[in-house]
Amino acid sequence: MPTAAICLIGDELLSGRTRDINTQTIARFLAPYGIPVQEVRIVPDEQDRIVDAVNTLRETHTYVFTTGGIGPTHDDITADAIAAAFGVSIGEHPDAAKLLEERYQAMNTEFTPARRRMARIPDGASLIANPVSGAPGFQTGNVFTLAGVPQIVEGMLGDIGHRLQTGQVVGSVTVRGADLREGDLAEALAELSDAHEGVSIGSYPWFRTVNDHGVALIARGADMEQLKQVRDALAALVRAQGVTPEILDGEA
Amino acid sequence: MPTAAICLIGDELLSGRTRDINTQTIARFLAPYGIPVQEVRIVPDEQDRIVDAVNTLRETHTYVFTTGGIGPTHDDITADAIAAAFGVSIGEHPDAAKLLEERYQAMNTEFTPARRRMARIPDGASLIANPVSGAPGFQTGNVFTLAGVPQIVEGMLGDIGHRLQTGQVVGSVTVRGADLREGDLAEALAELSDAHEGVSIGSYPWFRTVNDHGVALIARGADMEQLKQVRDALAALVRAQGVTPEILDGEA
Repeated sequence: MPTAAICLIGDELLSGRTRDINTQTIARFLAPYGIPVQEVRIVPDEQDRIVDAVNTLRETHTYVFTTGGIGPTHDDITADAIAAAFGVSIGEHPDAAKLLEERYQAMNTEFTPARRRMARIPDGASLIANPVSGAPGFQTGNVFTLAGVPQIVEGMLGDIGHRLQTGQVVGSVTVRGADLREGDLAEALAELSDAHEGVSIGSYPWFRTVNDHGVALIARGADMEQLKQVRDALAALVRAQGVTPEILDGEA
Repeated sequence: MPTAAICLIGDELLSGRTRDINTQTIARFLAPYGIPVQEVRIVPDEQDRIVDAVNTLRETHTYVFTTGGIGPTHDDITADAIAAAFGVSIGEHPDAAKLLEERYQAMNTEFTPARRRMARIPDGASLIANPVSGAPGFQTGNVFTLAGVPQIVEGMLGDIGHRLQTGQVVGSVTVRGADLREGDLAEALAELSDAHEGVSIGSYPWFRTVNDHGVALIARGADMEQLKQVRDALAALVRAQGVTPEILDGEA
């Protein structure tokens, strides 16, 4: 079964300046293909650290998605790092140079050497279209290298689905019990989990305010019939606590 | 110099259900202690994966922070995983059991076996106070094990600062240039970066709407005098493009 890992590249994520939202975007994109994300790493803008992470992740997962570091500035070193990870050269890709040149011409903007850097692509990689801002991402073996800006990541994912081997789609359902605490349900949940091996059950408390807290129970599984049984059993657990369950499709 | 890594534990982060915000909270908490976060990993609720990640990260960083998986339900396996990572036993910690027992008594709530699970702590670990919901985190060697719920993470950090070795505080400043694009500044930024080895300069484009986009330039460094020089030089670069720079303290 195919699996994926994500390698987020950028000092701004590690310093806390920027909250990552690309993991969520990529994980939700992959779910309908039946490709679970099994690991995420965040590494700084340092070539050795990027190379190590990408080389570890690409050996242990079917696909790796990197985000960040493919712009025109000096701190954009991902393309070089990916070339180093694969042990290949890097040079200007003619198609990438052509589309950037045309784009800047249309914008009446100078195609500076810095902007031309965005056409540097590891040898043998194929381009990933960027409908948002032009400069392409690229696929090197099983590694997809995307931009860091969330809107551009979303745009680039539109050119990736057709390259993926699909797996078994995992369905999910959420049963929410307002005002409950995890400890109210824990024993019964453990029994339910033991009785349904093919379904994984997660318990997630929420606390928004003293008047808005509870537990969200999420069941995930590939067998939709079994998933429905577990959903009904989870709803019964919540009802047994005197609470009306809220039942939602997906991981709500 | 001390460094930190973060290991976020939870299927809900990998599936995209939940967006991580604990990385930002922990990174911002550590910054005034001069402890940079150098790596983050997100792993699923599987003991082997947690053990591998924690053991790798604790050998290569001064401190490791884990979040998630210390509640009362069957999917809360972090305490056992940390004990396994350190090769120590796990059992009920008398202080943890006592404080939980008193808390549930005060709440007139049954102290069930599942709730008692939250008093299971790896042998030799010290407790981390949880002023939000009672059940403690714990410190095992250089690994701090915290809850997953963001409000509880914030609460637990209050019992961690006094345990940390402090490093060199890194200052930062942000210079924002509205309407600019990274390519407008890239050559000059590279020169500025080369000329100031002790300061790292990051360039972060933002695109909110067609009328609200630009580039945020962030300089980070321990030498405040040099940082000020770079700040002024960054502001001059933005001005040279005909844009009035917005100068902000920190990584804004």
